This record gives sequence, C-alpha cells and structure tokens, in this order.
Amino acid sequence: MSLIVQKFGGSSVADAERVFNVAGIVTETYDKGNDIVVVVSAQGDTTDDLIAKGNEINPNASKREHDMLVSAGEQISISLLAMAIEKLGYPVISLLGWQAGFQTSSAHTSARIKRVIPNRIRKELDKKRIVIVAGFQGLSKYDDITTLGRGGSDTSAVALAAAMHADLCQIYTDVEGVYTADPRLVKNAKKLQEISYDEMLELATLGAQVLNNRSVEMAKKYNIELEVLSSLVKAPGTIVKEKVKMEKMLISGVAKDTDIARISIVGVPDEPGFAFKLFSKLSSKNINVDIILQSIGHNGKKDISFTIPKDRAADAEAIVKDYAENIEAKNTFISTEVAKISIVGAGMESHAGVATKMFEALYDAQINIQMIATSEIKVSVLINKKDADRAVAAIHEKFFEQ
Amino acid sequence: MSLIVQKFGGSSVADAERVFNVAGIVTETYDKGNDIVVVVSAQGDTTDDLIAKGNEINPNASKREHDMLVSAGEQISISLLAMAIEKLGYPVISLLGWQAGFQTSSAHTSARIKRVIPNRIRKELDKKRIVIVAGFQGLSKYDDITTLGRGGSDTSAVALAAAMHADLCQIYTDVEGVYTADPRLVKNAKKLQEISYDEMLELATLGAQVLNNRSVEMAKKYNIELEVLSSLVKAPGTIVKEKVKMEKMLISGVAKDTDIARISIVGVPDEPGFAFKLFSKLSSKNINVDIILQSIGHNGKKDISFTIPKDRAADAEAIVKDYAENIEAKNTFISTEVAKISIVGAGMESHAGVATKMFEALYDAQINIQMIATSEIKVSVLINKKDADRAVAAIHEKFFEQ
Repeated sequence: MSLIVQKFGGSSVADAERVFNVAGIVTETYDKGNDIVVVVSAQGDTTDDLIAKGNEINPNASKREHDMLVSAGEQISISLLAMAIEKLGYPVISLLGWQAGFQTSSAHTSARIKRVIPNRIRKELDKKRIVIVAGFQGLSKYDDITTLGRGGSDTSAVALAAAMHADLCQIYTDVEGVYTADPRLVKNAKKLQEISYDEMLELATLGAQVLNNRSVEMAKKYNIELEVLSSLVKAPGTIVKEKVKMEKMLISGVAKDTDIARISIVGVPDEPGFAFKLFSKLSSKNINVDIILQSIGHNGKKDISFTIPKDRAADAEAIVKDYAENIEAKNTFISTEVAKISIVGAGMESHAGVATKMFEALYDAQINIQMIATSEIKVSVLINKKDADRAVAAIHEKFFEQ
Repeated sequence: MSLIVQKFGGSSVADAERVFNVAGIVTETYDKGNDIVVVVSAQGDTTDDLIAKGNEINPNASKREHDMLVSAGEQISISLLAMAIEKLGYPVISLLGWQAGFQTSSAHTSARIKRVIPNRIRKELDKKRIVIVAGFQGLSKYDDITTLGRGGSDTSAVALAAAMHADLCQIYTDVEGVYTADPRLVKNAKKLQEISYDEMLELATLGAQVLNNRSVEMAKKYNIELEVLSSLVKAPGTIVKEKVKMEKMLISGVAKDTDIARISIVGVPDEPGFAFKLFSKLSSKNINVDIILQSIGHNGKKDISFTIPKDRAADAEAIVKDYAENIEAKNTFISTEVAKISIVGAGMESHAGVATKMFEALYDAQINIQMIATSEIKVSVLINKKDADRAVAAIHEKFFEQ
C-alpha cells in the first residue's frame, strides 16, 4: 500500500463530466489499495470569473479581500468532486486549505507555504476515506485565508507530498507528459519517460510551462518523485526525479520562448562600472535581465545587448533611454521580434559538441543567431521571431529524428 | 457610540450596484461614530445556483459536502462588500463564520448556533474597522463548515448581537417593515412602528415571513431589540421588542396562510383514545397538526377535522385512510382549497370583543367560517381559499380603516 498525492488542474474538473472523469481516476487508484490525497484547483474559469466580479466593484481592492474572494473557487470544486466520489459509492471528505493544515506566509496573493501539518488528513485517511484538498490556498498566522498565486496548486500538491512522505505525487494536466518539443509545433515530438528536476526547471523557465517552477524546486528540495500525466488519456506520463537514466539521450527537449524583447545600446564608454549601473537600475525595478551580450571595446566604446521579459519592455526602454542620454551613448534599439530557442539536457554536461550540433541545425536551416548563452545543462540562442518554429523543428530533427 | 449589528439579505447585495448601496448604508452608520458588524447572506441566486451545481453531480450528496459547497456563496458576498467599502475609503475586513467565532451543532444544513465567541471581531472593531461577517454559516466541533438552513442569516445576526451585547440589531430586507397586512394585498396596509416578539412570532408562523422565526425566538430570549427596515427606501422600519406601547391598536396585523390542507374523518367512535392514537401516528411522521375541530358526539360517533401543512397532505392522507379503515369510520375528506386567516395582537389579551369584531367583518363579507382557533394573542379562522384575499381586506378594513 502506497500513499499517493494526485493533483488535478482547473481544466480537469471544468464541468460535471470532467469531475466524474477525475472521480474515476481517483477511485481506481483507491481500489488498488492506496491511500489517496487529491489536490484540486478551481473549476475552469471560476478564478477568472471571481476576479472579474471583484474588479467590477474595486480594481484596487486589498489583496487580503482578493484572497477571500478567489479562494471560494476551490471550495466549490473540492465539494463537487467529493459529491461525485460519493455518487460512485466511496468514502470521501473534502478539506479547505486551512483544514488540511496549510500554513503560509501572510503575503496575500503570493503567499509561501511555511509548513503543512496534515493531522486532519491523516485522521481521515485512517478512516479509509479519500481526502480531497483545496489547492492554491492556505492560512496565515493571522488566521486569514491566503492564496499562493497562479499555478499554486502544483506547489500545494508537492508540499503535501513532502509533509506526508508520499510515495508518489502525480500531477494530472491536459498534456500527456513532458515532450522533447511542443507537440503542437513538432509532429515527431516524443514524450519523455523521465526528466531530472534541473532539466524540468530549465524547461519551465524556457516557456514549456507544464509544471509550476516553485513546485519543481520544492520537489527537488524534498526529493519527491513527480509524475506528469494526462487526466483525459490513459497512458504513463513523465517521471520527474533527481537522477535519470542517461540512455543515448543527450538533451531532453527543445523549447521556444517568444515572450521576450531585446534591447541594445550602441556606444557605451568602454570603462568599468557602466554596465553595472545600467543593470542595477533595471533590477531595482524588478526587471529580470536574461541573456547579455557585450561587444569587444573599440575606440573606447562598446555595445551592450540583453533580453528581458516582453511585458516589461516599455519600463525597460524608459530606463535605458534615460541612461543612454546620461552617458551620451550613440543609440538604443529595442526589438520584440525575437525568440529564444533552447536545448536542455543533463547529458550535455559530459558530452562535448552538443552546442555545435545545435548551431549546425540552425545553419542548415539558414537561421541567423543573434545571441548565445550557455549553462551546464542548457544552450539558448536568440533568433528572429519569424524563424522560431522552423528553428525548433530543425533542432528537434537533428537531435531526435536522425 | 453604539455597537450596531446590520444584516443584509441576498437580494440587498444581488449585484454591484446593490453592493455599493449597502456599502453606503454601512459607512453612513459608521460615520455617526458607531461600531458596526455587518452580517451578509449570499448574493441573489448564488445559493440556489450552487445547489443546482451540486444536484447535477449528486442529488443525494452528504449534507456535510452540501454545506462545504453552499457556504462558498457568503464567502463571495462578504469579500465583495468589503471591497466596495474599501473603494469608499473606509477600513474594513470580512470574516467567515468560523473566523467570526460561530460555533454550531454538527447537524449539517440545519445546524444550531451553540455559541458565538467574537474575539476576532472585537479585535477588528478595536482597530476601528467595519467588520463584515458571513451569515448562515458556522463551524462544528469537528472543524467542519456547517450551515444554519434557510433564513439562517437572520439568526446569525441576532446571535451575534446577543453575544456582543449590541445596542441594536437592524435587519435590512426588501420590505420597509412589518405591516398590518400584506401591502401587495391590502392597499391601506400600515407599517407598524413597533411590534412585540410574541406577535412577530405569530405573524411569522402565519405566513407573514418578514423575519425567520428562530431569529425572533433568539431575540426574545436575549432581549435584543430588532429593527426591520428596507435597504432600498430610506425610512424608519419596525422595531421588534418585548413590550410595545399599546396605543389604541388592539391587533398588530392580519395574515393569510394558504399552504395548508384540511382533513376530516366522519364517524369516529365517541370513546376515549381514538383521537390520541391518530395524532400520535401523525406526529411520529413529523406532521404538525394545527387547528383541530371535534364535533359533539352523537349516536356514539363524532367527526374530527384538523389542518396540516399542505406539503405533507399526501403523507397525512395515507395515515388517516389507514386509520379510518381500522376503526371502521364512515368516511375521510381532504381539501387543499382552504386558507387560514389570522389576526395577531398583544392588545386582545385585555380587550374583549376582538374575535367578535373579526367574525362580524367576515359575516359582512358573506364569508363562511369552517373552523376557529384562538390563543392569547391570536384568532385564526379556516375559510375557503377563494375567499382568502377578500377576507384579509374585510378584516383589515374593520380594524384599521374605520
């Protein structure tokens, strides 16, 4: 007998039919003799609908009241799922975040889980009940309801699995697992059997948003084995764990991120401190700079280019223009017509030539590389946005289809 | 400075405009220097919508999960009202039933309030905050969310007023107060300035459902002064309290109840015990018998007639038919074409002739009386249902318009 935590997202419980589908998965697992705790998000668009209701009344409402409002969403979904499981004839109970023992910081709308004290859950499991827990929510030390921010239900599930020393934490989504590339984009994309926490983290930040990053970090920290799988298609998913079998696979996947912008400053004095001042200005406004490229100095001047999230482009441009004027730089450029293409794989640490193989694929497809960044398990290139899908296909073919 | 509890029903907060209307009433009271606790029901049809959602999945769901589901309704309304009050620039906080200290029995869907421990509310009032509390809900000793049943928000408000020794408990509804008759029925119906708890209780059971009966009983027990008033029309309402000024008013109101049925058994043996056995059979099935009429025995036989709630008519008929066969009674009749018309007034205790005046009004209108029942503060008659509205008008005219 194992203790299994199963998490279902909002689309998995969007209507009565889907709720019964989830009830079927849960009771099938229960029938195999497992103890089960199920973490559920709010149904479909419920959270957005509640936010819209709140915005109609006061778009600047306090975050505390915002959390009070939106947390009603999971209260509805957990009771509906419990009712469906009752209908199938199984013993079940639904618990809100605070009843399930989720203690969080008091940073409303983006609270951090401080600890989970699952006494009530254990008591219900001892009664052989299936336990349904509201994801995404907890209680602050002031006894106020908090929410964890978007994607927080993944984190709820992993935190619970850690606190209860669960044998497995299954994250059910609307995809069948983690793929070597976006299956909507690359026809021959392959589902991975396994992926390491670090690779998963890189893929998440690179836009292949299957799992919430905080949840993967937490799974890594507490060494919780995750399985990403589909609530609609019955098939094994992808296991996320510390060490994976290397096989012949050098890289795990190809990812594309088009939510970025590139900014360039031409004619920065080639002296110490200039770059530092610019980036500290940006970071003081919470603008994350990703890839940075600095040209070799020439005639006492150099050029600096870097990428930032697209939705901060306007803020960043204002800072950069102001800075460029102060230092009498020659010119600034901003472009949102860029894409970052990355390959991720723990295998590349020990295998030379992975980056070369990627560049070769891009050269074969006649795609120009604007910038390059590498880490132990990742190579990213910045290219023209219009080439992005072709680039993913070319790289995927080179690594996975030959 | 006074402590005032204000309660607003679901129709008073049905949409954003109504929510701001309530926010206006609350903040106006706050501006006068009062401490305010506001008890709110779920918006408009929210509770019914949630119940429909639950029924779609499992019409026989446990009451525990039913309470988990529907209690989300007040969570939405309290946070929206708090957001509206924030928008008006006032300090405010919303609290769920359990946060506000409502401890109830564990009889889900019809829990009784056992005690209210308003520590959190007091702390928030000390911070000069307006406190918004979810009505209709509480927490059982098992830490499960309970609901009080329909109309429970009135009871929440009165229980809170009692626990906090509030100076006044205002119940805002969609009528302007308690009237001498239903204003939709009797054009000249007058709003009462005051009415006693006992009269209010009689009126409530007689179908003039302005206040939930349990809330009036609780107000009487703890001597909480209630004011019933409109959230839409700015005018003094009706005060409900222990002793009211008698003035010239003998009766407080005329009420009509058409949700009843009459059952008659002809030819019951005129011997002890026969009536007792019939009524104990009915009470064992939780069928409340109201007016009972027994004819004088004749030739060793008598007739028994009585009224019951209309929705239990089928159950009662089955019991009565079975009973009538056993005792070889001549015949049984059932009619739902009846109405109970009542006058209520503490004044009639000390004034003779009130009943006579009522009968005179009915005689003038040529309305036949089938049965009569009286108590210290009430006279009820059973008449043909088609005469009901005419009867109310005639009696109201006799007592209030001459």
